[in-house]
Amino acid sequence: MTAVASKCRVCRQPAIIDLPRHNANFCGEHLLQLCRRQVEKAIADHDMLSPDDRVLVAVSGGKDSLAVWDILIDLGYRADGLYLGLGIGDYSDESAGYARRFADERGLILRMLDLRDEHGYDVPTAAQVTHRVPCSACGLSKRHLFDQAAREGGYDVVVTGHNLDDEAAVLFGNTLRWDVQYLARQLPVLPAGDGFPKKVKPLVRLTEREMAAWCIVRGIDYQVEECPMAAGNKHLAYKAALNAIERDSPGSKAAFYLNFVERMAPLLSGAEHSGADGLRPCSVCGSPTTGEICAFCRLKERVAGQPRVPVEVLLSKKRRTATAGGV
Amino acid sequence: MTAVASKCRVCRQPAIIDLPRHNANFCGEHLLQLCRRQVEKAIADHDMLSPDDRVLVAVSGGKDSLAVWDILIDLGYRADGLYLGLGIGDYSDESAGYARRFADERGLILRMLDLRDEHGYDVPTAAQVTHRVPCSACGLSKRHLFDQAAREGGYDVVVTGHNLDDEAAVLFGNTLRWDVQYLARQLPVLPAGDGFPKKVKPLVRLTEREMAAWCIVRGIDYQVEECPMAAGNKHLAYKAALNAIERDSPGSKAAFYLNFVERMAPLLSGAEHSGADGLRPCSVCGSPTTGEICAFCRLKERVAGQPRVPVEVLLSKKRRTATAGGV
Repeated sequence: MTAVASKCRVCRQPAIIDLPRHNANFCGEHLLQLCRRQVEKAIADHDMLSPDDRVLVAVSGGKDSLAVWDILIDLGYRADGLYLGLGIGDYSDESAGYARRFADERGLILRMLDLRDEHGYDVPTAAQVTHRVPCSACGLSKRHLFDQAAREGGYDVVVTGHNLDDEAAVLFGNTLRWDVQYLARQLPVLPAGDGFPKKVKPLVRLTEREMAAWCIVRGIDYQVEECPMAAGNKHLAYKAALNAIERDSPGSKAAFYLNFVERMAPLLSGAEHSGADGLRPCSVCGSPTTGEICAFCRLKERVAGQPRVPVEVLLSKKRRTATAGGV
Repeated sequence: MTAVASKCRVCRQPAIIDLPRHNANFCGEHLLQLCRRQVEKAIADHDMLSPDDRVLVAVSGGKDSLAVWDILIDLGYRADGLYLGLGIGDYSDESAGYARRFADERGLILRMLDLRDEHGYDVPTAAQVTHRVPCSACGLSKRHLFDQAAREGGYDVVVTGHNLDDEAAVLFGNTLRWDVQYLARQLPVLPAGDGFPKKVKPLVRLTEREMAAWCIVRGIDYQVEECPMAAGNKHLAYKAALNAIERDSPGSKAAFYLNFVERMAPLLSGAEHSGADGLRPCSVCGSPTTGEICAFCRLKERVAGQPRVPVEVLLSKKRRTATAGGV
């Protein structure tokens, strides 16, 4: 967000941001208005939230989750936060600090869980033991524990801070493989059912850059670093490819995601194959699962109690692999 | 295609090309074998050609159209060529020369048509008069005249040299907009019907680079330059985006296109809306059309006889626009 020698589309005061896809510039106040309205539109278009819902926000300490929490409170929703400590070294410690300060300064309820304290493992150790990318164990753990917390806490809906850039990149990945089952499920709302809470993404009409601007204008301090575990993953390559297209043709990214939701997703309904037919309670934790023991409990059983792998060890291994792969 | 200090996967002789998506290197002979087999597989999988078909190849003088013609003759098909002069300055003159020499050296039948000689216009002039991108008038003219030539010449099928890179880039463009009607029609075969000939793309399993290698190994001289009218178009930006993904994950491009054809296209059948219901003969040329006069005859009526616009004039205008847009 650089100073732009131009005027706000709404009030003609000096602008603080240019948004090529809207072919316009905005001052701080009217950027906030635009963000609020886009969130309201997403909520209304997809029937995401009701005024009486008890909302649980998945909080990472980054710009998106703090912004969506802030916007929902601003719009009058009853929203608590849940932070999950993933054990990714200093990155996790700092992220927790941002989340904690945000909540405390605003008198909001933030519950904090920690993978290692409560389940005996962390993301770097899980990645090392399972020989899979860290994002795999991380995503599985987050989904499971946010679902569980919503169920046990009596929340009606889990909110995540996925923005337009995130959703477009995931959509691009699924489209590159034409993974029809994943495509059919990639919607801004996953309805409740079979013991799973409703999950919604109110930021799907807003970009990373707009969310960063929201935080700056609102004085929200957030974790600016990307997760060190994510470096070099395909998701970032997909974002880069879409960003190149967006630079040439502003609006392409929003059209890609929003036209998918509007035009394509309806043609795929029925292809989801949720597998909900065979769900039963996990014999360890009681969460709905298709097997005897759910994927989270199987991961935990395999990884908990294994010698701890510091994040630096995993990162230096990753760098060696990347270098070898680049030859 | 640089010399690779490695061996052919098949015969262990020195390789001339590495193909990361096959995770292998090939000598000249076995590269040709791979290309032939991929064309045979495309023809068989999609029921493109029968041994008795009379085939008309749309020949541009570039690597793809000369290679597909060469491969079809090599595989024993009866294939004549048709070259259409588009009036794009030296580029068209040189392209015609490559096509002519290829046919003459092999004793093949190549018919040559010229837009200006026979229809009184050329692509640069059409672009200038219609205020549309040159590719628009070019595509319309080629589709119409190849269809007409096939009909009048008694050909069973029109072959074009679209390769995997071309098809993946067009698919990417249609996917970015989720243009469901275009997506539903983007198949390696368009069946005959309503007065239109069958159209097939036997190179959909092979890349640009493989086609260039085919031509080099076979001693085929071809027009290496890209069409000057195409510079800066979106198609090239889509190719660049997919090439970046392919570099990171070899095989992504083939998976993107071939999985679409296999998994997604069947879900879209019925969305084509060919508009064939209301077809009747064009009152000028007799080609099937939904209106009184077909799009080609309307273009010709508007453009033929207008002062000729040299390609250089259009290109310098294009450069000025690009520079202005870059500020």
